[in-house]
Amino acid sequence: MNFTDPKIGIIGYGKVGSALGTSWSSAGIEVWALDKDILKLKQKIDNRPIGICSSAEELLDLCSVIFLCLREEDLSAQVDTLEKLNAHNIILAHTAGSLSTDIFSSLKTSCQTAVFHPYRSFTGLTTEPGILENSFIGIVADSKIFPVLAELVKKLKATPVKLDASNLPLYHASATILAGGTVCLIDSAEKFLKEAGFPEQYIPELVTSFVLQIIENIEKQGAREALSGPWKRRAIQVIQKHIDVINEKFPQTINLYLSLAQQVMDTEDEDFTDILDIP
Amino acid sequence: MNFTDPKIGIIGYGKVGSALGTSWSSAGIEVWALDKDILKLKQKIDNRPIGICSSAEELLDLCSVIFLCLREEDLSAQVDTLEKLNAHNIILAHTAGSLSTDIFSSLKTSCQTAVFHPYRSFTGLTTEPGILENSFIGIVADSKIFPVLAELVKKLKATPVKLDASNLPLYHASATILAGGTVCLIDSAEKFLKEAGFPEQYIPELVTSFVLQIIENIEKQGAREALSGPWKRRAIQVIQKHIDVINEKFPQTINLYLSLAQQVMDTEDEDFTDILDIP
Repeated sequence: MNFTDPKIGIIGYGKVGSALGTSWSSAGIEVWALDKDILKLKQKIDNRPIGICSSAEELLDLCSVIFLCLREEDLSAQVDTLEKLNAHNIILAHTAGSLSTDIFSSLKTSCQTAVFHPYRSFTGLTTEPGILENSFIGIVADSKIFPVLAELVKKLKATPVKLDASNLPLYHASATILAGGTVCLIDSAEKFLKEAGFPEQYIPELVTSFVLQIIENIEKQGAREALSGPWKRRAIQVIQKHIDVINEKFPQTINLYLSLAQQVMDTEDEDFTDILDIP
Repeated sequence: MNFTDPKIGIIGYGKVGSALGTSWSSAGIEVWALDKDILKLKQKIDNRPIGICSSAEELLDLCSVIFLCLREEDLSAQVDTLEKLNAHNIILAHTAGSLSTDIFSSLKTSCQTAVFHPYRSFTGLTTEPGILENSFIGIVADSKIFPVLAELVKKLKATPVKLDASNLPLYHASATILAGGTVCLIDSAEKFLKEAGFPEQYIPELVTSFVLQIIENIEKQGAREALSGPWKRRAIQVIQKHIDVINEKFPQTINLYLSLAQQVMDTEDEDFTDILDIP
């Protein structure tokens, strides 16, 4: 099988699948897509020059590198289907960043298998190329097929990063803590400000511009050096005021406040373990 | 006392004091500074046209609007000094965002008092003007002097926001959770990636560009809608993998992971309270 200018198959044309399909197709690569709902798939692809397959069999006939862009829980069933169709001599990659290639089970002997995980937050279907430019794509693959996948990453104008399968959960947790965490911090801050009577029309701008300042400081100085405020100063009375008002108004957020403060202050000092009162 | 083109006094020329002093002075306002270490103060001011006072008495003689840019714990002693000097008919503001004007105690009858809190993270001394442009400055002041302070905010090209004293702790907690929280998330993610064997030279760029993407998504769609990833999908098996590896490698970060996940999933669903195991 020729992996030099491979035709790419995408199974599951959702947020990740559409980002990859749109970007590769606009880079001049032949892309074929398969989705459980073929009518929706046609709408999603719109006028892009992406082929539509009506079955996994058809996709296997056409493509030598196939990406399974499915939810973790839907991967096994798809692997079973590919196995029944006697898939062989192709590269099979999934995009679930927390799972190794073990999910491909018996196909591991007949196919080359890989993990291909864009470190990127997708919030919807991608209809324009470019979304993956300058991003990093984590790859688990042996040294025979890594160059093939790395070449495909470069077509996305992204950077391939070889990872060891055993490290995937921690790698993936870093993305989850950043993406979910940033949303969570901003959502909490917006609720606090609204309750504090801050004019609502200013809140989104205030909050995002403030976080951008923090990131700029981190870029200049590194994360630990960019820290300022009462946690850094260990201003117990201020922290106690925060805890009191959060307990009163947003008790569901107190664990978050305490665990952030604990993490930042990172101390065995009894003054703080007392006030933070974390089990 | 004339508040139309007031001379500004700054007591405490640290991160906040230097940001205000530098910016007002470059906006053509007469600024006088006082700091406990006059030699350091001279170095800090460098060649800026900012006057140096050698005593609070001198500052009181010269200025009609005085900003106490001190740590919370140092405010009382300074207020005592100003009281002994019979400060009167001036505007006295402090920049500690979690404290009301009660800190001014008996001076509240002889002076106009206010809180003046830039919603801004300062990581060092400011030697160039412009740092406060486009920021928001929370102000607690009665309607007589609010316009004077609002006018001074506009000289900084910032936006004044009138706040109620009772809301200050929650307002201030929002800034702390954002600033400390962002640093904490990025620091944790960097540690995870390093331990996961991600190439160290890529980590700072990966992490900050990823958070910038999240913020862009939040700006477009709002915080809750921008959420993606396993917490949003409620992918229990993935979350369990994260918990296991964090417990093994970074036990000090498990409370943070759990409280973020709990906050985001915001659920009474037993499947999740079980797995998250938060008291």
